[in-house]
Amino acid sequence: VINQPIGVFDSGIGGLSVVKEIQRLLPHEEILYFGDTERVPYGEKSPETIQRFSSQIAELLLSRGVKALVVACHTASAFALDQIQASFPVPAIGVISCGVAACAKVNSVAHIGVIGTRATIRSNLYQLLLRKQLPQVKVTAAPCPLFVPLAEEGYWEREASHLIARDYLTPLKEAGVDTLLLGCTHYPLLRPLIQQAMGPEVRLVDSATATAQSLLLLLDQGDLRKRSGEGAINCIVSDNPDRFRTVGSLFLGRPIEQIELCSASSRANEKEHIAAH
Amino acid sequence: VINQPIGVFDSGIGGLSVVKEIQRLLPHEEILYFGDTERVPYGEKSPETIQRFSSQIAELLLSRGVKALVVACHTASAFALDQIQASFPVPAIGVISCGVAACAKVNSVAHIGVIGTRATIRSNLYQLLLRKQLPQVKVTAAPCPLFVPLAEEGYWEREASHLIARDYLTPLKEAGVDTLLLGCTHYPLLRPLIQQAMGPEVRLVDSATATAQSLLLLLDQGDLRKRSGEGAINCIVSDNPDRFRTVGSLFLGRPIEQIELCSASSRANEKEHIAAH
Repeated sequence: VINQPIGVFDSGIGGLSVVKEIQRLLPHEEILYFGDTERVPYGEKSPETIQRFSSQIAELLLSRGVKALVVACHTASAFALDQIQASFPVPAIGVISCGVAACAKVNSVAHIGVIGTRATIRSNLYQLLLRKQLPQVKVTAAPCPLFVPLAEEGYWEREASHLIARDYLTPLKEAGVDTLLLGCTHYPLLRPLIQQAMGPEVRLVDSATATAQSLLLLLDQGDLRKRSGEGAINCIVSDNPDRFRTVGSLFLGRPIEQIELCSASSRANEKEHIAAH
Repeated sequence: VINQPIGVFDSGIGGLSVVKEIQRLLPHEEILYFGDTERVPYGEKSPETIQRFSSQIAELLLSRGVKALVVACHTASAFALDQIQASFPVPAIGVISCGVAACAKVNSVAHIGVIGTRATIRSNLYQLLLRKQLPQVKVTAAPCPLFVPLAEEGYWEREASHLIARDYLTPLKEAGVDTLLLGCTHYPLLRPLIQQAMGPEVRLVDSATATAQSLLLLLDQGDLRKRSGEGAINCIVSDNPDRFRTVGSLFLGRPIEQIELCSASSRANEKEHIAAH
């Protein structure tokens, strides 16, 4: 089992920022990444659709023999993680609970700000989990919907991005946020910009790094951690491998070589879904 | 036949700017709009996928008795219009050829700029058709990928949007473009911003208005134009009607009432697709 890969999935490319952190922390692990580029983005889709898509992907990754699942998509993590944990025989973690766990470890937090896509913030899951785990802490959430396209378009340091960051973040800064949780896998690319808008005294917690740390603990608990050999990253996408190669390399910080094209909504998967309902 | 609706489809919400112009020009027509919100955006998907999705939608609209089809999605118009015209028994037009036809009517054009999503510009179809129809005219194309999210987020007049518009459009202005084709159904919302970046002397041609004009001609040619009664708009979306209602109203300029939820990739449709291949 130890030599089996870790399955990581996202609606598209963003989850590669989680893969990058996993590889930094767990360099011996094989990673099998699925990006659902045919059906990206999940953000504005209904919970039922997100659950169905996530199950299909988990099934596909399980059929490839993964030893653990990482839900690197915030929307899927919000709406489908419980179902995945209940339905599949391998341990599964999601970016949202990992981000919350990381916030709980920050010293002297009084007021946490959470930023993410509109769907993540609307799901309210970050806010609920933070209030549950840190009942004495104030939580303020704000959607930053333009950050994803700005990150994908390489607008990481432009004046326009600074203006938009100020639109989104000034209310959080003025509310007295001392710790800001980056609740979207695209946001690490904009980290310097976000830090500048919030000011140097505000601590940033990034859910990608937090997820890699939680995964390390999870693997150790289950005695699943691989301790030697060179880890590799294999990617499967459901559409457009070329675009994935180009933009994905920005997220991973190095070129992507192996990309397989495979739909998660294959006929076999769809049939099982129909049979199950 | 005259009393049957006109079928209009798009990958999502943007095609409603075409519907708005159709209703202005042809107020008696019934319109049946399909927005494929489950699978939006089409822009980065492969041509084969776009053709399959478009055929499924055309089939669905035909099964609802439409008398004509308007492909209000630029990506589908680029990759799937030929196939739709060849496979279905009603007349069909697409936003791209309509935009080109409108450019051909502008007086004393010497240099046309075309802007659109990355996929539209990469498809090269606007450029090819313009060069074919107007061989003496110079054509310069530029993708403006951030305009869609800026339009959907209501960033129509913000300083950040002006900066981004200048990034995209200054090269076109400096190249001496005298006529600019707005090759994306989202762009009419940013029209004042685009006009300001290009300067008052540059004429803007908008593919939504152009498509409504072509549709009028098409209906008259086939004796299909409805000349009395109040037209209604009925919408079908494949996911998330609430978001469609909110953002769609911005595009339509008035509230949307009737929204039906229906997937185009239904089992029946998928079966036919499988059988056909």
